[in-house]
Amino acid sequence: MKTIIELGESAKAAERILATTTTQQRNDALKAIANVLVEDCDEIVKANSLDLKYGRENGLSEALLDRLKLDEKRIHGIAKSVLDVIKLPDPLGRVLSEKQLDNGLKIKKVSVPVGVIAVIFEARPNVTADSAALCIKSGNAVILRGGKEAINSNKAIVASMRRALAEASLPEDCIGLVEDTTRDSARGLMCLNGYVDVLIPRGGKGLIESVVKNATVPVIETGAGTCHTYVDKCADTDMAAEIILNAKAQRPSVCNACECMLIHKDIADEALPKIAEKLIAANVEIRGDEKVCTLVKEAKKACEDDWGKEYNDYIIAARVVEDIDEAIEYIYRHGTMHSECIVTGNKTTAEYFLNNVDAAAVYVNASTRFTDGGEFGLGAEIGISTQKLHARGPIGLNELTSMKYLIYGEGQIRG
Amino acid sequence: MKTIIELGESAKAAERILATTTTQQRNDALKAIANVLVEDCDEIVKANSLDLKYGRENGLSEALLDRLKLDEKRIHGIAKSVLDVIKLPDPLGRVLSEKQLDNGLKIKKVSVPVGVIAVIFEARPNVTADSAALCIKSGNAVILRGGKEAINSNKAIVASMRRALAEASLPEDCIGLVEDTTRDSARGLMCLNGYVDVLIPRGGKGLIESVVKNATVPVIETGAGTCHTYVDKCADTDMAAEIILNAKAQRPSVCNACECMLIHKDIADEALPKIAEKLIAANVEIRGDEKVCTLVKEAKKACEDDWGKEYNDYIIAARVVEDIDEAIEYIYRHGTMHSECIVTGNKTTAEYFLNNVDAAAVYVNASTRFTDGGEFGLGAEIGISTQKLHARGPIGLNELTSMKYLIYGEGQIRG
Repeated sequence: MKTIIELGESAKAAERILATTTTQQRNDALKAIANVLVEDCDEIVKANSLDLKYGRENGLSEALLDRLKLDEKRIHGIAKSVLDVIKLPDPLGRVLSEKQLDNGLKIKKVSVPVGVIAVIFEARPNVTADSAALCIKSGNAVILRGGKEAINSNKAIVASMRRALAEASLPEDCIGLVEDTTRDSARGLMCLNGYVDVLIPRGGKGLIESVVKNATVPVIETGAGTCHTYVDKCADTDMAAEIILNAKAQRPSVCNACECMLIHKDIADEALPKIAEKLIAANVEIRGDEKVCTLVKEAKKACEDDWGKEYNDYIIAARVVEDIDEAIEYIYRHGTMHSECIVTGNKTTAEYFLNNVDAAAVYVNASTRFTDGGEFGLGAEIGISTQKLHARGPIGLNELTSMKYLIYGEGQIRG
Repeated sequence: MKTIIELGESAKAAERILATTTTQQRNDALKAIANVLVEDCDEIVKANSLDLKYGRENGLSEALLDRLKLDEKRIHGIAKSVLDVIKLPDPLGRVLSEKQLDNGLKIKKVSVPVGVIAVIFEARPNVTADSAALCIKSGNAVILRGGKEAINSNKAIVASMRRALAEASLPEDCIGLVEDTTRDSARGLMCLNGYVDVLIPRGGKGLIESVVKNATVPVIETGAGTCHTYVDKCADTDMAAEIILNAKAQRPSVCNACECMLIHKDIADEALPKIAEKLIAANVEIRGDEKVCTLVKEAKKACEDDWGKEYNDYIIAARVVEDIDEAIEYIYRHGTMHSECIVTGNKTTAEYFLNNVDAAAVYVNASTRFTDGGEFGLGAEIGISTQKLHARGPIGLNELTSMKYLIYGEGQIRG
């Protein structure tokens, strides 16, 4: 088993070769990966069944076991996702700016790979292949560190992918796996300065916080999403009800789901019962402030912990606010700068909300569930950045690149 | 004296107001700052004389005392730099992409301020006003933490700038100063998550390393520059000599100065004596490997420490290499990904170097001294990023912005 530093060294060496490959070479490697995953389907399912067995023995919930499970259909799905990445435009070699200075120097800014990307993730083994495909396409080597629950599946998937890289004449170390799933290995990866150019954590709040606290390598924070929908006094209340229902209940476990609705006091009497009816019919529990509980008899009284909470469940917090400024202030205090929405028919109010709410995605009259690389037309994504540097919102292929300046001279010196 | 957290809170509150100001409002504030700095010239010089007195008592070198010194002429220069920032285009509100999806959603990606920028710097008080001006222009609040050597100067300059902000009807907390110059205050700032959106260290290697190791807030690494010039076998040796002389000796103390030259073995006999003659005439000491010492009798024998060293002085390391691959490998091992140059008349060789050297700026036939926001036409810069995320190379106004997605719907929900 390689040490973390050995993994870093071999990824760095592989990345230097990968960085200068053509689009065709990288796409060929992705094709080989998709093929080999399908070829190796039986072995992968077999390895996965070990993880499922240990998972059951260790009392993993049915929901987690389901996320962990791989069968032929899912592996074909994973292979298909890898093939989809081939169709996306090459993010490398884009000319980001170009100019000629008065002294004759030509300066070109072009996109290049970031280098070595480390991904720490939890139980879902599909993340292994998805992340690797996006990294290879963007010319980056990747070091994967999954959870112990999926270690056998991850080993099998990575072994297949590395074999495919070799078949496609690329260094197999373009994809590395941390086989040690102790906390030490995660900490080691977080501090692998000089080898890891960026670390992307994919997982729950605990993981993200640990990475932010402990990492000395650059990090792109992802994930945590406490999203709000504000229903303005000029809202179409039927539209508001549809949007909130969708944002909450279409898939409550994800980061772009709505966790709290804020209703303008002037429209609360009309809007709240209408919204509540739809939510309750979809088995959503409402936890409201006093006014909400007065208007919706099924609502439970919210406690302090409910404000700013990411439920990831069929629960929504609800509050009546005095005006848009109170809504914005509340979002500032309790949001995670992920996705925020206003429902309003008033354009000026909409612009005010767009300008004053600081989040990766700010919506007028649409469900926050659209914050997604696929939906935004970026193709696949490796996560949703909730930080403000480098990438914000869905992290697609372009966000996995850096840049460099190329300067062409004829002997120019500085005076 | 405000605590670090209080500074963070007040900067955050100020930033929210600053973020929604118009170009005119921010430019007016810069004008006010320039005016007040000139008005307050006497007080600033007086405060600075205290720093100079303590500096002399504490044995600061003449070079450092000179960097610390402010007089009327220098303060007018600082004010002029602030006025120059007014002329630069507003980096906020740029539409970075725009599209309409099939479902009718309109998605616009626009540039917004990063938020609160912390700058930790050392003895030069001009950095105080320069950094503040760039931050204000780009809609960011700034928390400045300078060295203890300049604390009286910094207090005076910041007091003037805050008064100017108030005169221009902007919150004075858009510019904050950490008055506590102990190590604790720097550490506090490095871990001010939730308040500081990015920390930019400006200073020597020790400062940068401390920030990378200790910061939990996002960081843009700057500065350290061990730059190389490779003279290819197809080089014009006169051009090579001029470029290396300029890159080394025009201003040796800066990060884009050349610290090491690598000479192809086939051209060493002709090139090295020619280059050495110019360098020696400019009082540059050459520390070479064996071959260099054979060809240049004035060269000293380099020791292991000389390879990869940032001298910031009239000293240059020199090596003869077998071929371009050895040069690239050497740069990979010893460079800091700042600025690297090849001198060659062969276009294919030039492209090979450009593609295979990973640095913020890669040059063909020009002095590395051009890596600079002003020279690149970005206007002023707050530093040179040597990391690969967010900003690489000169950090100008655009690099001090983040982005957000604005999404305009008519009730769209996700299916």
